[in-house]
Amino acid sequence: MSILIVGSTALDSIKTPTAENPRLLGGSASHAAVAASFFAPVKLIGVVGEDFPKKYLQLYGRHKIDVAGLQILPGKTFHWSGEYELNMNNRRTLLTELGVFETFTPVLPPLHQATPYVLLANIAPALQHHVLDQIKRPKFVVADTMDLWLNVALNDLVKLLKRIDGFVLNDSEARQLTREDNVFVALQKIHKLGPKYVIIKLGSHGSILSGPKGYFLCPAYPLRKVVDPTGAGDSFVGGLMGWLAAAGGSVEANIRRAMIYGSVTASFCCEGFGLTRTTKTKRDDINRRVRELEAMTKF
Amino acid sequence: MSILIVGSTALDSIKTPTAENPRLLGGSASHAAVAASFFAPVKLIGVVGEDFPKKYLQLYGRHKIDVAGLQILPGKTFHWSGEYELNMNNRRTLLTELGVFETFTPVLPPLHQATPYVLLANIAPALQHHVLDQIKRPKFVVADTMDLWLNVALNDLVKLLKRIDGFVLNDSEARQLTREDNVFVALQKIHKLGPKYVIIKLGSHGSILSGPKGYFLCPAYPLRKVVDPTGAGDSFVGGLMGWLAAAGGSVEANIRRAMIYGSVTASFCCEGFGLTRTTKTKRDDINRRVRELEAMTKF
Repeated sequence: MSILIVGSTALDSIKTPTAENPRLLGGSASHAAVAASFFAPVKLIGVVGEDFPKKYLQLYGRHKIDVAGLQILPGKTFHWSGEYELNMNNRRTLLTELGVFETFTPVLPPLHQATPYVLLANIAPALQHHVLDQIKRPKFVVADTMDLWLNVALNDLVKLLKRIDGFVLNDSEARQLTREDNVFVALQKIHKLGPKYVIIKLGSHGSILSGPKGYFLCPAYPLRKVVDPTGAGDSFVGGLMGWLAAAGGSVEANIRRAMIYGSVTASFCCEGFGLTRTTKTKRDDINRRVRELEAMTKF
Repeated sequence: MSILIVGSTALDSIKTPTAENPRLLGGSASHAAVAASFFAPVKLIGVVGEDFPKKYLQLYGRHKIDVAGLQILPGKTFHWSGEYELNMNNRRTLLTELGVFETFTPVLPPLHQATPYVLLANIAPALQHHVLDQIKRPKFVVADTMDLWLNVALNDLVKLLKRIDGFVLNDSEARQLTREDNVFVALQKIHKLGPKYVIIKLGSHGSILSGPKGYFLCPAYPLRKVVDPTGAGDSFVGGLMGWLAAAGGSVEANIRRAMIYGSVTASFCCEGFGLTRTTKTKRDDINRRVRELEAMTKF
């Protein structure tokens, strides 16, 4: 089955202590869409400016990502610039130019409105609502978010939580949302806000699913070198939703394995700047790392 | 088979934002010995002063811990006092009175010298060497350590690493020892210093084993409330070694499951001050949490 992904489509200029990479393809929807494309057909909803490089449209094309819902408007593409510290854990934003993103109104082509799997990747909650309003009877809807929306659009986000099946956020966002230090108590509090499935991402420590059948402790794939973690969280949830869409059937029966596939897809993302490593990855590479993770967790 | 454990035997006065508990039974050897006692017969090597409460000797007795190697000397028992911050992650030492520990020279009773499993719990590396000198052909020797010894006894510690089979330390100690941020690169560097098995503890994120058959990613048992994490690391390695001693046979075949048992034993330790929760734990409680962890990690 296919998956619809809405989120940001951006150009990322990323600095690390050892390298500088201007205007890479980035944004939550780009990372999630490429990750999901390893498993299922993807329909992308987003907006870019007239300056958006043709090579990035070709990249979407190579991943068979349907761009009928990608608006190309007069003006500039959303441009984000950030700098990582040596340990790759702390980053600071150097620049944010919203460009055409400032007035983005997602419009779903009629054929997209019946997509069964929907990923509301990180984007303003109002836009996530707007996409959901246009979707007819989705099978499974998951939303991601970021600290910014907890600060400036908390009401919209809390309303969204009542409309979705799964919610993905990282541990510091979970603490901010629930005012609770303990991640397992935070999970409980987030369930009360609506979602049946809650996933808290822990970076290199993996992620935790809380659902009707209890917890799943999902490991991260061990990496000896992290080149650029930008988009890893988006890749995780993109891979997860892509795998669920490909599997079809019961979400409950498939979601753990879907998380493992998402986790492995995110590991490739971390090994190169932007999407450079992910786009060189083959499905066989993903399967191999999944088998390795199986071997590393058995007891 | 039985296990010999040397380490500190102390009185711990522990402050948290909500409670104050003076003169609890503590020390690396006490925590490790009680944890190991759930699985195998334990021989404790340590020293206490004449002020050591009789009730704590009785506690060792209830856990069938052999105290023939526990010296009771004129003077005061090692007393440590510490205070935890609200999130239970940061603690500061308020007071350290070494007492009889200052001149501790571990002497192994003749019958102890052929114990097959040896745990050199956290204690000065010189004392760990001294115990190892008295042991005849051990089957499996594991050492734990702390940041203090990396600062003041690094040479002794590095020499010890060439004499042991397994080494256990936490992630910040691994970073300090190897000057390497990435935990998987650090593991590689520590292997080069000697030990065949290296385990890096990650607190609530579990632990990682690196051995001849690759990595094992060991989860921590999910806790909704951490009352006092003092001794959790010692309980982990105590439970691990106790389970290995009970299993006998090939270390390679048993070490992963041993880590899971260690991890679960440590989870009980965190749920009470000092050893108060651990000593109320039954073997059935441990088995139940191990089964739960199995269910939470399967995919």
